[in-house]
This record gives sequence, C-alpha cells and structure tokens, in this order.
Amino acid sequence: MSQQVEFFFDYGSPFSYLADTQLAALAQRTGATIVYWPMLLGAVLKATGNASPIAVPAKGRYMGVELQRWAKHYGVPFVTNRFFPINTMRLMRGAVAAQQADCFAEYHRAIYPAFWVDSANLGEPEVIRSVLVKAGLNANLLLARIEEPDVKEQLRLNTEEAVRRGVFGAPTFFVGEEMFWGNDRLTFVEEALTRS
Amino acid sequence: MSQQVEFFFDYGSPFSYLADTQLAALAQRTGATIVYWPMLLGAVLKATGNASPIAVPAKGRYMGVELQRWAKHYGVPFVTNRFFPINTMRLMRGAVAAQQADCFAEYHRAIYPAFWVDSANLGEPEVIRSVLVKAGLNANLLLARIEEPDVKEQLRLNTEEAVRRGVFGAPTFFVGEEMFWGNDRLTFVEEALTRS
Repeated sequence: MSQQVEFFFDYGSPFSYLADTQLAALAQRTGATIVYWPMLLGAVLKATGNASPIAVPAKGRYMGVELQRWAKHYGVPFVTNRFFPINTMRLMRGAVAAQQADCFAEYHRAIYPAFWVDSANLGEPEVIRSVLVKAGLNANLLLARIEEPDVKEQLRLNTEEAVRRGVFGAPTFFVGEEMFWGNDRLTFVEEALTRS
Repeated sequence: MSQQVEFFFDYGSPFSYLADTQLAALAQRTGATIVYWPMLLGAVLKATGNASPIAVPAKGRYMGVELQRWAKHYGVPFVTNRFFPINTMRLMRGAVAAQQADCFAEYHRAIYPAFWVDSANLGEPEVIRSVLVKAGLNANLLLARIEEPDVKEQLRLNTEEAVRRGVFGAPTFFVGEEMFWGNDRLTFVEEALTRS
C-alpha cells in the first residue's frame, strides 16, 4: 500500500497555500498520496485556545516577511489578500462538497491562487461563483451543496477530528501518527516518508 | 569586516538551547561572528503581547515532540528541565555580568547543558553557584554582580532593544537588518550569510 500524507488545511491560511504549492512535487518524489482534510481554522484556534499570529502585532509583521521569504524560496507567486482575514466557512464547505462531487482537484486548483495570488474576496458567494465558473466547475451545484446540512456536518466533523488528533494550526501534516505543524516542516514530512 | 549573526536568547528557551548547539559549526562554516544578546524572554512576551507555546495545551504537547525531533536531527542531548518553566532573571543577568567580566564563553558553555541536559533548578542562586564553581568560574564575583544596578539595567536595555527591533520570541537572529525567528530558521540564517 502506498504511503499517505494527511494535509489539514484552510484556504485562509497563507502558509497552507505555500505548502500546497509543494505537495505535487513531494508526492511525485516519494510516491505518497496526499489526503486532503478541509477544516475550519477559526474553529480549531477557538477549540484549542490558540490565536492567529496576526493577533500579536510584532508576529504579524514578521509573518509578512516570512511569507515573502518562503514564496521566494519556492519560486511561487504570493500576494497577501487585501481582504484578509476572510471568513472561510463557505470555501471550506465548498471543499467538502467538491470532494463529495469528485471535483476536488479542480476546486482546489482554482481556489488557492484566487485567494493568495489574485486577492479575490472569497468570503462573498458571488466571488466564489465567478472563480468556480472560470475554472469550468458546476458552480450552481457546489454553491447549493454548501448550504446543505450534510456538507456543513462533514466540515464540522473534519474540524473535530483535527482537534482530536492534536492540530492547533495550519497547515498540519500527518505521516502515520506523526504530526508536523507548518509549511516549514515539509522537509521533515518528506524525511518521514522516505525512512519508513 | 567579518559578518555577524546577532543571537537574541534566553536560557529558559529550549529552542534557543538547540539553536545554540549549532552556532559554533555555523560560525566556522561561514566565517561569521556570533554576537550574543542575553534578553529576558518573559519581558519580551509581555511587551509584545505574545505568549509561551505552553500556554496552549495542544501546542505545548507538540512542542515536546518537536524538541525531541530536533535534538535527534542535530544528534545532541536534550532533556526537558523538570523545573521548567524557571525564572531566568538571575541567569540572564549573569550572562550580562559574564560578558562584562570577559568570561561569557565559559559561562554560556556551563549554563546551557546544566539547564537542558542536567535539569538543574537554575532559578536558585545556590544551584547557579555550584554550576559556576564546577565550571571553574568566579562564582562569588558573578553572583555579586547579578545584584548590581548596572547589570540589571544592561539586561533591561538588551530586552528593550530586542523589542524595538521586532523580536517577539526566542531564539531570534539578525543578519544585518534581516530577522529570523526560531531554531528552524538556521538554514536561512546561513543562506543569508553566504549570499551577501
């Protein structure tokens, strides 16, 4: 059986975006499968008593430096979304709905650059719609599914599962039982995949 | 002129200890000089509104995993001090006094392993004394200097300087104006030294 990397993420987390830009290559190098766990980071922070780095002004300023540093290190585009922080409830429910409708890869590929390169105001349903349409996705279906109880419940369960397993921030990775927090742990994630 | 890495640290920070174990080799590889800035981490956290990772239980548990992970990665001994967290006011004043008395290298080399390998209760003056004596240092002089206003003032000034420059945690490094937070940024610190 091929190995797995579980990736707990929220579209509103810029370090999750940066990590995400590296996952395809990591999967290719290691032969591992990426298992995507959409979760609601705000709820994780609340449940664990953690806070966003931007809650501490000096940390927030350093985070800005770090985001540019990592984007440069990876050679990927990055623009701090000018509407940040955005309520990502709909986006994350949309990820769950896309997983169920078997169009997650396309959804994921559309949302992340819209958020962290194009500065789209993705808290707004009509903005989400236009991004989905542009990506050739069934926007009507996905936006309708976002409002349905089973989708809401699944996102809630994902978020609970994250907290149960010790997640307190994003991105968080698991290789088996081993947990890795942060974009900056991808080299350790890869090491864990290659040593086992 | 040789390049510098400024190292803002507190003996009570286990990630500062881990980073410190790597600095001699980094200095040798790059030719850079390490400039040691003893500061009072508790005062930095208070001034910036930041909190220790152990304030969030899930983060504290993960910190335990990470410390072992990095110790193993570096191949250095590490034991979580059983008295942690310890008030490091005297220790940090001692570092300032040792810098002034030109015995900082010996002081530093004695304190870190006592804290993070031998689990010494270094909040207690008599425990500090026995560590200093064992290291062949002038314990009477240093313990007397710790109580003097100019030493207290210098530690206060160091801590203010840290906050002024954007420090919010430990360890923090500067290469010129560039700031790097965390043991896990040493590869970027080295990159900054070699590219300039």
